[in-house]
Amino acid sequence: MAKKMKQIAVYGKGGIGKSTTASNLSAALSRLGYKVMQFGCDPKSDSTNTLRNGAYIPTVLDTLREKGMVNAHEVIHSGFNGIYCVEAGGPQPGVGCAGRGIITAVDIFRQQRIFEELDLDFVIYDVLGDVVCGGFAVPIREGIAEHVFTVSSADFMAIYAANNLFRGIQKYSNSGGALLGGVIANSINKPYAREIIDDFASQTQTQVIEYIPRSVTVTQCELQGKTTIEASPDSAQAQVYLGLAKKMADHTESKTPKPLEVQELRGWAGKWGQYLLSIETGEVREELSGNI
Amino acid sequence: MAKKMKQIAVYGKGGIGKSTTASNLSAALSRLGYKVMQFGCDPKSDSTNTLRNGAYIPTVLDTLREKGMVNAHEVIHSGFNGIYCVEAGGPQPGVGCAGRGIITAVDIFRQQRIFEELDLDFVIYDVLGDVVCGGFAVPIREGIAEHVFTVSSADFMAIYAANNLFRGIQKYSNSGGALLGGVIANSINKPYAREIIDDFASQTQTQVIEYIPRSVTVTQCELQGKTTIEASPDSAQAQVYLGLAKKMADHTESKTPKPLEVQELRGWAGKWGQYLLSIETGEVREELSGNI
Repeated sequence: MAKKMKQIAVYGKGGIGKSTTASNLSAALSRLGYKVMQFGCDPKSDSTNTLRNGAYIPTVLDTLREKGMVNAHEVIHSGFNGIYCVEAGGPQPGVGCAGRGIITAVDIFRQQRIFEELDLDFVIYDVLGDVVCGGFAVPIREGIAEHVFTVSSADFMAIYAANNLFRGIQKYSNSGGALLGGVIANSINKPYAREIIDDFASQTQTQVIEYIPRSVTVTQCELQGKTTIEASPDSAQAQVYLGLAKKMADHTESKTPKPLEVQELRGWAGKWGQYLLSIETGEVREELSGNI
Repeated sequence: MAKKMKQIAVYGKGGIGKSTTASNLSAALSRLGYKVMQFGCDPKSDSTNTLRNGAYIPTVLDTLREKGMVNAHEVIHSGFNGIYCVEAGGPQPGVGCAGRGIITAVDIFRQQRIFEELDLDFVIYDVLGDVVCGGFAVPIREGIAEHVFTVSSADFMAIYAANNLFRGIQKYSNSGGALLGGVIANSINKPYAREIIDDFASQTQTQVIEYIPRSVTVTQCELQGKTTIEASPDSAQAQVYLGLAKKMADHTESKTPKPLEVQELRGWAGKWGQYLLSIETGEVREELSGNI
């Protein structure tokens, strides 16, 4: 293998636009000429369907349950522009570890040396980041991914999840774990949303690699079962995703973040909360305005 | 113990208002004269702080890590109107099972027979419902709670999480697991939000026990570190929470829900998505209007 494959994990809270971002990133990288695999690691198994005209694919775990063993080629499905699509899948609700799909799927792919065989440029892991438990941390802990990015809006719950992710990255940073590439700021429309996410990135010593506005174009394309890159390639939103892809291709050096302590994060969120409330209610709170 | 203690688990996706609802429910039940314990089962450990003027309490897992053993009385802290507050806590990000806190904390309380000793009327478990893995399903699977309620907005991710919860409940319904009381519909302001949540409840053969509007009063009270019941007892929002508490006190019969299959849920969400898009863009889509 002459070239070096880049493995990137995209984490984010459910509902934050993680799979939308991952799929548009994969599609954009593919448009730039790279060979890409998107590896969905959310138990919902809906990471790759906008790369496949809305069609869902059988997951690695489902196939394993059905057949007792899995040939990796059976669970790799072709998507937009030749992107290789995989869904790890999840356990039945209420049973076992929700991260089991990732662990199992990655093991199978490694044993069968599939990444080497396909001679990929990029593998994009799309991982649920709400609960950074041992299962969901596997791509970080075992250094499967080299670079981790987190999709986050300016919503505090998303930022809380991102900070927990940073804690997980920090924990394994000295033992071969994946490092942090930065934050992909999503649904950034209001000026204060950008201020909040910039402040969080600065506090945790990381960077915002791209700001992605909320756009009805994305929703319209997804209702057609497609990424924005595919269905609306000339839109402003598609240019944003292409810009993100170029930055990802150029990105080389990830770092250990400095997550906030829980107490610090609560204090930080409290200050921003007061500030936003003052915007919502139209009040000016003199005693706070100096602090923000 | 003459009276029968009612154990209620409130599940919901992170960020959906689960802890806000649980705390206002506990506060309202307490106002109605009941002896209440709120048992936070979210690794964020922020379930009970609006019952304690914004102050956080040491978690069961933290105390166990520090001291090697836990006397239940050490981890029960007094809150608003004498409510007993407990936080199970969570593991370090990236390590082990995120549901470990619940399992451990409930075991300690059972072994020390603390529920019997305190002669409680209600225990409200506040549980993260994003990932219904084996750990977070413990209060259902082992029948710790009798009744499960889910806090859900009309957001599809919240409904997806609720449907997964229903799948977990259904799975254990014949082996002594907790049954479903219904849906607490939260952040319901727009008319279509009520239609969506009603439709989901109807499809899954459950009920909406209360509709809670989004209210800036709640945010203002929480920034003071208080529930709405405590800080704004005469507000319309406080009356909604009192109404919910009365319904909870009267509630006796929970049932096995009929969750949608994943394919059905996707189809259902797709139809509503088209409908909402037509509202957002101002288009009327004739071919769909007849279906909804």
